[in-house]
Amino acid sequence: MAKILITSGPTRQYIDPVRYLTNASSGRMGAALATAALELGHEVVIVSGPVEVDYPPGATVVPITSTEELMEVAREQFASCDGLIGAAAPCDYRPERVSDQKISKTGEPLLLELVETDDVVATLGAEKDLDPEEKRRWVVGFALETEDHRLRALAKLERKHCDLMVSNGVEAMNALENSVEILCPEGEVLAEFAGSKTDVARGVLRLVDERLIRRNR
Amino acid sequence: MAKILITSGPTRQYIDPVRYLTNASSGRMGAALATAALELGHEVVIVSGPVEVDYPPGATVVPITSTEELMEVAREQFASCDGLIGAAAPCDYRPERVSDQKISKTGEPLLLELVETDDVVATLGAEKDLDPEEKRRWVVGFALETEDHRLRALAKLERKHCDLMVSNGVEAMNALENSVEILCPEGEVLAEFAGSKTDVARGVLRLVDERLIRRNR
Repeated sequence: MAKILITSGPTRQYIDPVRYLTNASSGRMGAALATAALELGHEVVIVSGPVEVDYPPGATVVPITSTEELMEVAREQFASCDGLIGAAAPCDYRPERVSDQKISKTGEPLLLELVETDDVVATLGAEKDLDPEEKRRWVVGFALETEDHRLRALAKLERKHCDLMVSNGVEAMNALENSVEILCPEGEVLAEFAGSKTDVARGVLRLVDERLIRRNR
Repeated sequence: MAKILITSGPTRQYIDPVRYLTNASSGRMGAALATAALELGHEVVIVSGPVEVDYPPGATVVPITSTEELMEVAREQFASCDGLIGAAAPCDYRPERVSDQKISKTGEPLLLELVETDDVVATLGAEKDLDPEEKRRWVVGFALETEDHRLRALAKLERKHCDLMVSNGVEAMNALENSVEILCPEGEVLAEFAGSKTDVARGVLRLVDERLIRRNR
């Protein structure tokens, strides 16, 4: 049995007390991955942004709002986990300045300076590779692109120190179905899964089980 | 019996196919207002942004995503309605340019130029006042402020040609309870309601019934 950390859902980056930047991630893929992992007898911790989805009762769920909180909680949890599946869609830009009062409309354009948030999967992937007890932990990333899916997913796999990368298109977001390719560090497409997120999640977990969890035994 | 248009929920303004600007409006206040209006025997049309709330089955619901769509649909519906309750929290800024591909991270800050979206309540309020058959239709606005609630709500009442303005604080957003003041064009506080959104909505509808619907009979 492995202890698996799953990040899930969107994050929010507030620009003032009312308005924020986010995306339509529903947490459904995270919930399906958690269910599939529990089915295989693994222990699951989910760190989730604000979603309406129901996570399986067998999983421990830690709710967060911003990418900074996701980073903090995921890092803390990852220390005691065997692997990470980064299915969250963290908001990857945050406003340079956050207004503590609701910004009033003036009729003029509002110039918003956004800076990149730290990449959670890349940060934990790098930490994993610095681990003295090498190969103890593993990291599976998700890549969502509107073009050049495979090429960009492979670049992300390398940059984020992932052991596997799940590549999907933007149509996966907030949908019931998904269609993914699983890429390995050697650049091969190990598998393709399409159908309900439940079925896709089972396929991904089977592969994770074979390639990443059992190799450690 | 009156035919009442209720706008409800948030809107989204996409900056690319994945990321958007929005707020945490849940649609709960809109749903409670619709229920209260149906209880009084009125006909209800709801134009709603993306929410998870259940609207009462007796209401007609038209889903929209952006503020531009809200404007288009609400304007169309308002023509055949007696009044508008603007309980939506439309995203009031939109990016000047929308990218048709997911913006890739470069490590550099991203400068986002936001421009104001057209104000739905102000636009329909102005159209109502230009109506040749004066006083046929009425408009109730909602003001959500983090400071100077009453002063700013009154300024909005006037600017948006409202017949009543419901003033509430930011803590109302995505909450089960609410605490509001109802202001009239003469600048008086006509009533205060606090408690569950169901109770607050009933109070608001009673006042709308007395002051706006029955005066037209």
